[in-house]
Amino acid sequence: MSPTSIAIVGVGKIARDQHVPALRGNAAFSLDAVASRNASLEGVAHFRDTQTLLDERPDIQAVSLCAPPQVRYRQACAAIAAGKHVMLEKPPGATLSEVEDLRAQAERAGVTLFATWHSRYAAAVAQARDWLRERHVTAVEVQWKEDVRRWHPGQEWIWEAGGLGVFDPGINALSIITAILPEAFFLTQGELAVPANRQGPIAATLAFSDRRGAAIRAEFDWRQTGPQTWDIHVETDAGPLALTQGGSCLTLGDDVVLEGGDVEYPGLYARFAELIARGESDVDVAPLRHVADAFLLGKRVEVEAFHE
Amino acid sequence: MSPTSIAIVGVGKIARDQHVPALRGNAAFSLDAVASRNASLEGVAHFRDTQTLLDERPDIQAVSLCAPPQVRYRQACAAIAAGKHVMLEKPPGATLSEVEDLRAQAERAGVTLFATWHSRYAAAVAQARDWLRERHVTAVEVQWKEDVRRWHPGQEWIWEAGGLGVFDPGINALSIITAILPEAFFLTQGELAVPANRQGPIAATLAFSDRRGAAIRAEFDWRQTGPQTWDIHVETDAGPLALTQGGSCLTLGDDVVLEGGDVEYPGLYARFAELIARGESDVDVAPLRHVADAFLLGKRVEVEAFHE
Repeated sequence: MSPTSIAIVGVGKIARDQHVPALRGNAAFSLDAVASRNASLEGVAHFRDTQTLLDERPDIQAVSLCAPPQVRYRQACAAIAAGKHVMLEKPPGATLSEVEDLRAQAERAGVTLFATWHSRYAAAVAQARDWLRERHVTAVEVQWKEDVRRWHPGQEWIWEAGGLGVFDPGINALSIITAILPEAFFLTQGELAVPANRQGPIAATLAFSDRRGAAIRAEFDWRQTGPQTWDIHVETDAGPLALTQGGSCLTLGDDVVLEGGDVEYPGLYARFAELIARGESDVDVAPLRHVADAFLLGKRVEVEAFHE
Repeated sequence: MSPTSIAIVGVGKIARDQHVPALRGNAAFSLDAVASRNASLEGVAHFRDTQTLLDERPDIQAVSLCAPPQVRYRQACAAIAAGKHVMLEKPPGATLSEVEDLRAQAERAGVTLFATWHSRYAAAVAQARDWLRERHVTAVEVQWKEDVRRWHPGQEWIWEAGGLGVFDPGINALSIITAILPEAFFLTQGELAVPANRQGPIAATLAFSDRRGAAIRAEFDWRQTGPQTWDIHVETDAGPLALTQGGSCLTLGDDVVLEGGDVEYPGLYARFAELIARGESDVDVAPLRHVADAFLLGKRVEVEAFHE
């Protein structure tokens, strides 16, 4: 089969660091164009915006949208209307409602829409999910703690309304637990710590449950200096499971059974190729829905002002 | 056909004022039991909680859950597990995620789940929807302004996290516009005015759009004394439509074409009977999703403390 001709829209850090290498390593795709206001990519056709790309390159079959969520809806609408398959960086939109509309549009147009959650493709996630499938989960403890100054230097927008605050990394943890836990769960209580000078929370403590009454807790914190923590601990009727280092390391009981490298974006594009081949879409809003639930139900507590 | 044997769970003001009279006026139902910790209903069997009701009255075929959303999930799970059809007062849950889970449970159990939005059954809503179906909507202006002291005296919980604040009435407006507008829409900008001493907003200004770029604005305000306003004005390519008085009055251009009475709850139970007869569910979370989007994307602005 000839490769799917694909374009990247939004050539920023995530596109350069992850999308371009992943695409170049996948024979199912041919990276034939980019659209970006300011940035270009050597050896690849460049267009200044999505509409120009769509107008001038009818041969492009798929687009990968890497621009921030605030502008993604219009880009996705245009691409779907032009009959392209569409892949969305996370989170898939600024609101849940716009993502529902994109899902409906893609279905009507008969194209593939893939709302990606890159952390779900971390090395050990699939094995953790498979192991948990038949287990009874009694408790879950999520620790997602990192230093915002280190990972988001100068990114003022993450603090603004719609920027999600500490849920920007936290949604990665939510994307993993919504994939691996065998039962659906929902927030029962939440506390959002919001700096006095910001809109977005710098930390969050969340308590979820499921229909069997599991105690699922998550701690997101952007104030962690020193070692960084992206760990999930699950208690089950068959003993404990630990999924650590952002989902790349799996421990069952005391045994480290898998310690993998960074395979997230290659995994995303393998999945996108599979979806296109099958004529299917994959639009799971569950992680963003949990974040919206946390903003809806969570109690906001003012904490000291944050200055970078 | 013999009437469906139904029980009400949660005998508070809304049950007495609306559900009981609507049920007694509908020959498709027989109100045979209530479950409520403190309240009972003359001439109707009383149980102290949902589980006791379900255990002792296997003949009951349907339950209508009128207790606050915080406790509704557990009640609904128990009723679905017992094979009952379930009707939920608005909003259908404290989180979007729990409602998704209830939807999945009802589907597996093969029972009807009806997440109600009573304002959608106001007298003129169906006619407004039908008239707008083939129209091109260019602008919408929602004014939902009432006096919280008059409508929610002493209800401290509506101000707490999860209580929705001014979105408690505002969600009624959202339930109407999601039903009547021909295109899906989504929030693009929002401002939530939150009293210094409260968690929930006392007012909100929301800007939505749709894929055709309509300008949809909503003003929710709980500080309105004097005349109360529950009005929706829609501009279309065929002239203006006004749906006023909470959805009971329809004006096309300058002509008042319908001015109806209060028919909301009779309409809800007629719909519930129809769903049961057809073996279908109706779980549209769109209004609650818009509220969650507003909490997610909206900018919070502190306003003066509210004291009742």
